[in-house]
Amino acid sequence: MDDWVSRLEPLARDAREAAVALRGATAEAKAAAVRAIARRIREGAAEVLRANAADVEGARVSSTAAKLDRLTLTPARIEAMAKGLEVVAGLPDPVGRMEKEGRGPSGIRVAKMRTPIGVVMMIFEARPNVTAEAAAIALKASNASILRGGSEALRSNRVLGACMAAALRDAGLPEKAIQLVDVPDHAAVAALLRMDRYIDLVIPRGGEGLIRSVVESSRIPVIKHYKGNCHVYVDAAADLAMAAEIVFNAKVQRPGTCNAMEHLLVHEAVAEAFLPVVAQRLRDAKVDLRGDAAARRILPDLAPATDAEWDEEYLDLVMGIRIVRSLEEAIDHINRHGSSHTDAIVTRDEAAARRFLGAVDSASVMWNASTRMADGGEYGLGAEIGISTDKLHARGPMGIEDLTTLKWVVIGEGHCRT
Amino acid sequence: MDDWVSRLEPLARDAREAAVALRGATAEAKAAAVRAIARRIREGAAEVLRANAADVEGARVSSTAAKLDRLTLTPARIEAMAKGLEVVAGLPDPVGRMEKEGRGPSGIRVAKMRTPIGVVMMIFEARPNVTAEAAAIALKASNASILRGGSEALRSNRVLGACMAAALRDAGLPEKAIQLVDVPDHAAVAALLRMDRYIDLVIPRGGEGLIRSVVESSRIPVIKHYKGNCHVYVDAAADLAMAAEIVFNAKVQRPGTCNAMEHLLVHEAVAEAFLPVVAQRLRDAKVDLRGDAAARRILPDLAPATDAEWDEEYLDLVMGIRIVRSLEEAIDHINRHGSSHTDAIVTRDEAAARRFLGAVDSASVMWNASTRMADGGEYGLGAEIGISTDKLHARGPMGIEDLTTLKWVVIGEGHCRT
Repeated sequence: MDDWVSRLEPLARDAREAAVALRGATAEAKAAAVRAIARRIREGAAEVLRANAADVEGARVSSTAAKLDRLTLTPARIEAMAKGLEVVAGLPDPVGRMEKEGRGPSGIRVAKMRTPIGVVMMIFEARPNVTAEAAAIALKASNASILRGGSEALRSNRVLGACMAAALRDAGLPEKAIQLVDVPDHAAVAALLRMDRYIDLVIPRGGEGLIRSVVESSRIPVIKHYKGNCHVYVDAAADLAMAAEIVFNAKVQRPGTCNAMEHLLVHEAVAEAFLPVVAQRLRDAKVDLRGDAAARRILPDLAPATDAEWDEEYLDLVMGIRIVRSLEEAIDHINRHGSSHTDAIVTRDEAAARRFLGAVDSASVMWNASTRMADGGEYGLGAEIGISTDKLHARGPMGIEDLTTLKWVVIGEGHCRT
Repeated sequence: MDDWVSRLEPLARDAREAAVALRGATAEAKAAAVRAIARRIREGAAEVLRANAADVEGARVSSTAAKLDRLTLTPARIEAMAKGLEVVAGLPDPVGRMEKEGRGPSGIRVAKMRTPIGVVMMIFEARPNVTAEAAAIALKASNASILRGGSEALRSNRVLGACMAAALRDAGLPEKAIQLVDVPDHAAVAALLRMDRYIDLVIPRGGEGLIRSVVESSRIPVIKHYKGNCHVYVDAAADLAMAAEIVFNAKVQRPGTCNAMEHLLVHEAVAEAFLPVVAQRLRDAKVDLRGDAAARRILPDLAPATDAEWDEEYLDLVMGIRIVRSLEEAIDHINRHGSSHTDAIVTRDEAAARRFLGAVDSASVMWNASTRMADGGEYGLGAEIGISTDKLHARGPMGIEDLTTLKWVVIGEGHCRT
């Protein structure tokens, strides 16, 4: 690893220097750079597609179909990428915005100013369409980025990296503001994770194993997304028709995503009326249902849920059902077994909803909505850099503002400490 | 260490359970508990003083006078501690407060709610007056705390811990909401730092060595305070009389604190007028001055500053002086050599001030004020849990609110993802 430290330290130092220079960049220059990335990618589309075809060819044997699909670029996907970048370019620039202005006891003026984090390192899977968007979001917040994509996308990312460097030059911003780590060696990442002198934040995106290994070896703060074991709780006072729509959407609309529901909790007062109808609908959509003893009394053909089941994130058409005797039991189940990602209550009882929203310790808590709504776009962020299941700094969907921090700005008239 | 894991896991698990229970605690119950801590400490003052006398006796041989002073409690200090707790009890309760209410593109209501972090572990030196205040601030934000004080204060902290447990019982809150790790073994701390399942945040307070070792071995996010290499920059357009007051206050008023100035930067246009006067005044106060070549041309008897000097935090009556040719050179010096703690500009030129406030990457940036003003009390926080030199989650002085986090609260009318 020492070898990697000396080899990669210049890259990290360059990122730090670029971050310092970016503090002086205007909102206009940053937006122009992001638009230039879109233009350069459109112009280089043929080259990107050639490199990507080679990546896909190289990954064919070792990858699942889903992984190959995420790796594959098409002309339409490149155009979508460019359009996404133009959206990012047009989003509000948070840097320099003043918040919480007030005065201290001495009369001194005290406020907080949105300011860049500095150097952000992002580690992600072989998804080349993520590369440019992640860099653009970091840039809009005046951060330099170090990008490490899955090695299967190395050729695609190299071409995209060249487009981004050219775009930064076009806009008169430092070329090293966006850098790719294009070596396939895992030790290279481990070496970078020790460079807390240069790098301020690490955001790994990918499987739980990857993220745990980053946390294990990083000296730099990490914002992470472990998993989404999301719940819908159908309360005694739920509108059952609305509950059925929400449950179906949360489970079936896109079961492989982290905000899909994995477990359904139903209050015993409505279980007999609710479960048979919704179970039929879910089974028609090929959902494999499991339940606790109480649920199996209502749906006798239900497979029994194991104890370990309640902690599981299926990411598939599988769902566990548990009957609870009270709102408090539902809250307790979610806080014990959930992953602090997204959990919803369906009810007409405002007091029950308020209690649930306050007591459930998750990044997103919802009332009468599908967990699938937990998304930067749906929340109005415009662009999303990922979803945090952490508690510090940023929770849930993260936008441009979440790649900034607040500094204290203090204005006196010669104020001294007495 | 494995031994410590099995021994301390129940403590961490109890803290987690207590944190879950605290989510249901009312603002009134939490305030009452903090007031009860004050009362119990007053009532137990004789016992606290006896234990503290034994601690002081035990530490006498191995400790410096300053360390012994921080360890020592007196009736007046106990009363000050109790009064401080009553102030904390009366501060606003941030938990449950709604921020940034708006709507997503689908019309769904989206807001953020202040919510506790969960379990906070605090590691600090042998300063028993910090113990109760830290626990009280954590409790006001509905967090359970695990407190690990310096081993020299073990006896004092045990008595204070008993007072706090009794106070929690008085207020009907879980006794395990505040727990002390009262084993002197360092391996115990290392074991706790791996328990990211139960503990959400670690705040170490103490020397840089202690903090680095915590960062090195922690799997839990750490908010840290490395050091304060603070600067005052006297601009070409400074009011020199104001600048002299600020420099004197920032250096001399309490040189051992992290927000004391360590290095003075002076614009060359005012150096000849400013330096002789301020140098005389500082020397009269026994400040040991060092300077770069340009400063030494103005003050020939100045000791030369070494290159390494600019990175140093003296925490003493020592100060380095450097002449800069421009505002930009001052900004660059601070961003390169500073510790991102607190840095000030003295100027009458608003444009120069705005540029400095925006470009200097420090937790507190000041205009026409002494760096000593960087303090939770001066900023109106009411009580301070520490000062962060980190960039994530909290920067600078941290109050009760900084021990909370924001969760997304989403309210729909059956909203599903399309």
